Amino acid sequence: VSEPHAALPPSPVTPLAWQGGWRDGALALLDQTLLPREERMLRRRASAEVVTDIQRLAVRGAPLLGIAGAYALVLAWREALEAPAPTSEAEARFAAGARSLAHARPTAVNLPWAVASALARTRGLGGAERGEALLAHARALEAQERAACAAIARHGADLLGTRTRVLTHCNAGALVTPGLGTALAPLYLLHHRGAPVHVWVDETRPLLQGLRLTAYELGKAGVAHTVIADDVAPGLMRQGLVDAAIVGADRVCRNGDVVNKVGTYAVALACRAHDIPFYVAAPRTTFDAATARGADVPIEERRGDAARYLLAGTAPPGAPTFEPAFDVTPAALVTALVTEAGALDPLRLPSSIFGASRG
Amino acid sequence: VSEPHAALPPSPVTPLAWQGGWRDGALALLDQTLLPREERMLRRRASAEVVTDIQRLAVRGAPLLGIAGAYALVLAWREALEAPAPTSEAEARFAAGARSLAHARPTAVNLPWAVASALARTRGLGGAERGEALLAHARALEAQERAACAAIARHGADLLGTRTRVLTHCNAGALVTPGLGTALAPLYLLHHRGAPVHVWVDETRPLLQGLRLTAYELGKAGVAHTVIADDVAPGLMRQGLVDAAIVGADRVCRNGDVVNKVGTYAVALACRAHDIPFYVAAPRTTFDAATARGADVPIEERRGDAARYLLAGTAPPGAPTFEPAFDVTPAALVTALVTEAGALDPLRLPSSIFGASRG
Repeated sequence: VSEPHAALPPSPVTPLAWQGGWRDGALALLDQTLLPREERMLRRRASAEVVTDIQRLAVRGAPLLGIAGAYALVLAWREALEAPAPTSEAEARFAAGARSLAHARPTAVNLPWAVASALARTRGLGGAERGEALLAHARALEAQERAACAAIARHGADLLGTRTRVLTHCNAGALVTPGLGTALAPLYLLHHRGAPVHVWVDETRPLLQGLRLTAYELGKAGVAHTVIADDVAPGLMRQGLVDAAIVGADRVCRNGDVVNKVGTYAVALACRAHDIPFYVAAPRTTFDAATARGADVPIEERRGDAARYLLAGTAPPGAPTFEPAFDVTPAALVTALVTEAGALDPLRLPSSIFGASRG
Repeated sequence: VSEPHAALPPSPVTPLAWQGGWRDGALALLDQTLLPREERMLRRRASAEVVTDIQRLAVRGAPLLGIAGAYALVLAWREALEAPAPTSEAEARFAAGARSLAHARPTAVNLPWAVASALARTRGLGGAERGEALLAHARALEAQERAACAAIARHGADLLGTRTRVLTHCNAGALVTPGLGTALAPLYLLHHRGAPVHVWVDETRPLLQGLRLTAYELGKAGVAHTVIADDVAPGLMRQGLVDAAIVGADRVCRNGDVVNKVGTYAVALACRAHDIPFYVAAPRTTFDAATARGADVPIEERRGDAARYLLAGTAPPGAPTFEPAFDVTPAALVTALVTEAGALDPLRLPSSIFGASRG
């Protein structure tokens, strides 16, 4: 992952930035719950605030969750040292803060992995030394993910070639990475090279990340797009208006199963029925060697999400709902996994792609 | 269609009723745009009001559109006779009113068919005689559709048998017919017989007819149900939680293609991928001999519908959208068409099922 960045367009948005040193710094986060109405940067100096931001989806998306978790550990370590309690208890307080970060949301593997990896790499260090090391680790992870986006952009653009009418689901763009995104990165690059890119944007019920976030960042970047209700897509495919689909992932399992935003499986089925390539773009940090298959992944349920983005009074009071946030797409439906290491066959994943999760 | 109604449950809701005679009467319509918040009956004495009610979806659903159109013709004839203009022009004024009703919405065939059929059957009559005849024709159509619902309930219940965990899309229930509905009728009957019916209700973007209307009438009838975002369904099927799907139709073409609410095709594809029966319930009045195949049907686009049922500010200002209201499901994906004449193979439709459209 050391290709030149010269040919890449700038990222249309910066969702996260650490400002300052480990002792005085803060984590700036773009509050994604307010988009596209308002671009407000939050400035967090307490790790518990970041846990809440993760839970309320102010910061979201597998790669960004990992990076936010890594930076929030710097805050947690500082809190542990500064607490009005014996220094001998700092390690225990830090461990509690780390646990709370790692489990803030259950599905994306990047978050628990980033926390575990930071703990492992700084174990045995104390005081300022550990603060510096945690910050350096978070910065390295951020740089690694930015480089992964660049590599995914190039590999994905090669794979798409002249397939420029591309469907995407949810938001796997600049808003969820420090770079150009995962699924959207190849589209930004193709557009930058002058290709006639047009993106079909699934609105992505229930939380409308496509309508709110993907349309927002594609609009900022000047990439042509059209928002559709999710179940419009199969009809477009049947009419020959979709060349390929590309989505991100929250976790790729050892057998190649992909866990991603609910509705991804529906896109994969429709692509298969119409012989359209279905690509999943994800950095190495999203591959989880510890999970054998999709059925083993905890699927977050978020009761009330649907109502949050609908007019009050739309549903009969008390109508029962089932609101899983993710679903599983079996490996056999995935044409290729686009990673920083190139395009991989999901049914023949090399063990090296799971390198990140060995910490 | 003369089976006894004794074993049927009552309809949970009355969406339409003609009140009075042809000269003094009015068409009462339940305003479906206000559901489930408010149950308000509109009382219409002008045919143009009914055109508007149809266009703004206050009255909706293929069978009900036909019946509303037939009753509105009574209003149109009365207006033509009462206008302060030569009686010799009454016929021309009536014809203009009828055209405006027939074309109020383009996709459901029931509406233009009901209007054409009423015109053909009362041609040559004048004055009160035609008023009476138009009212009698509308009442006969209403009775015919009520009987069709009862027959569909029985045939559909036989077909479903012990498949009681059933998915539906949009609203094809009591709200769109003078009886128990089309797709929902078999479920009401099975529930009435004590079967453990549980309905997975697709919320049905963009206008949320499932969340707003199907959940409303199932709730009134006490039928267990759970509302899901549309693209949750394939995951449920993969987990073995769905025994069958049943939907209504806006038009069934000569080759068996089914035109119905957008998203229906996605349901059919997911059913096929999981080997789950996909049933379409529709009365004879929805079968259109004049349309060879789905690709020939005008698909209504309703720009702005999505925004109407979402919080203001959710989408980036000016985000381009594509909002078809319907899609086409090829006949080969339909396990059976459930009609008042029994369960039919969509690939071998008898010409007799197109009887209604011969006027």
